[in-house]
Amino acid sequence: MPRISPTKQAILAAALELGAQHGISGTTMDEVAEWAGVAKGSVYYNFSSKDKLFEELLTAGVGQLSDTLRAARESAAGFGAVEAMVRGMLALIAENQALAKLMAAEIFRTDRVWQNAVQVLRREAVGEIAGALEPLVPAGTGEGARLLMAGGIFGATLVGGLEWLLFTPDTPAGDVAAAILFTFSGALAS
Amino acid sequence: MPRISPTKQAILAAALELGAQHGISGTTMDEVAEWAGVAKGSVYYNFSSKDKLFEELLTAGVGQLSDTLRAARESAAGFGAVEAMVRGMLALIAENQALAKLMAAEIFRTDRVWQNAVQVLRREAVGEIAGALEPLVPAGTGEGARLLMAGGIFGATLVGGLEWLLFTPDTPAGDVAAAILFTFSGALAS
Repeated sequence: MPRISPTKQAILAAALELGAQHGISGTTMDEVAEWAGVAKGSVYYNFSSKDKLFEELLTAGVGQLSDTLRAARESAAGFGAVEAMVRGMLALIAENQALAKLMAAEIFRTDRVWQNAVQVLRREAVGEIAGALEPLVPAGTGEGARLLMAGGIFGATLVGGLEWLLFTPDTPAGDVAAAILFTFSGALAS
Repeated sequence: MPRISPTKQAILAAALELGAQHGISGTTMDEVAEWAGVAKGSVYYNFSSKDKLFEELLTAGVGQLSDTLRAARESAAGFGAVEAMVRGMLALIAENQALAKLMAAEIFRTDRVWQNAVQVLRREAVGEIAGALEPLVPAGTGEGARLLMAGGIFGATLVGGLEWLLFTPDTPAGDVAAAILFTFSGALAS
């Protein structure tokens, strides 16, 4: 992966902070430049447009999520892989709350110029979870059903994680993971 | 509940459609008037500002979700109440996909003038699920843990439902509910 210059890093960090606070439509390149402490020309030198800037930010974010899920999946077998994925995704959300908020607001938008790039990566992330489910579901379960289950686990972790950080941030991370994983234990249904 | 005039209904429907397509920041009162087929003055006569218009739209939507969850909860006992809630919420999402998309994009925004009204209602909706979990969790489970579990079930249904409608809309609703509910059955963890 090419190294990212400090200027580019500052611009991406500014775009993330402003986008999470005010939405992407509510963020201007002028504000990004000011927040990053760089000249506006420097923003345009690094990213030709606001669309390109947020596309790079979101695809990098969803890519990082896929990497985290893949590593978690490979770290354990059976349901342990699902547990590791929920914990890994919660840690990532806690580490980068602004990105998690932005992703929650963006993953179902269908009017963005970058939607295809983001959707490909979102499917890759959900696909990692679906892959971990493969040995756990009954023989004959279709891929569509497995992807819906994976989408459910992804949604439970994303929404549970954001509820945690926004509304009860003092709860220890381990308790949050335990609560979400409890819903998959079967204890509710028995 | 007071009757809503046809004009007001047309304005709300236009705001919903445009907001789901282009985001709230990307929607103007002029466009709402044009889409609704009413004069701009009529939009402002019914809603004093764009903020008021979307506040009413979102609070009505989240309120309807709470009503649906409450009715589902009262329709069955034990885990059956959770099953009824997942099915009821999926039906509502399918009925009003634009509202579901808008809600997914808005529920974690913290910069909106209407955020308090929406958050109160969001907590009410998640609280309905948490209430249904009360007889299902081990004695001594705290309210915080129960709310996190409820947030997880809410997120699984919202994200699973939107993945379904946006990416595999031909899947029958019953199969979607079955896939999401399967993750709570304990079969994955056993």
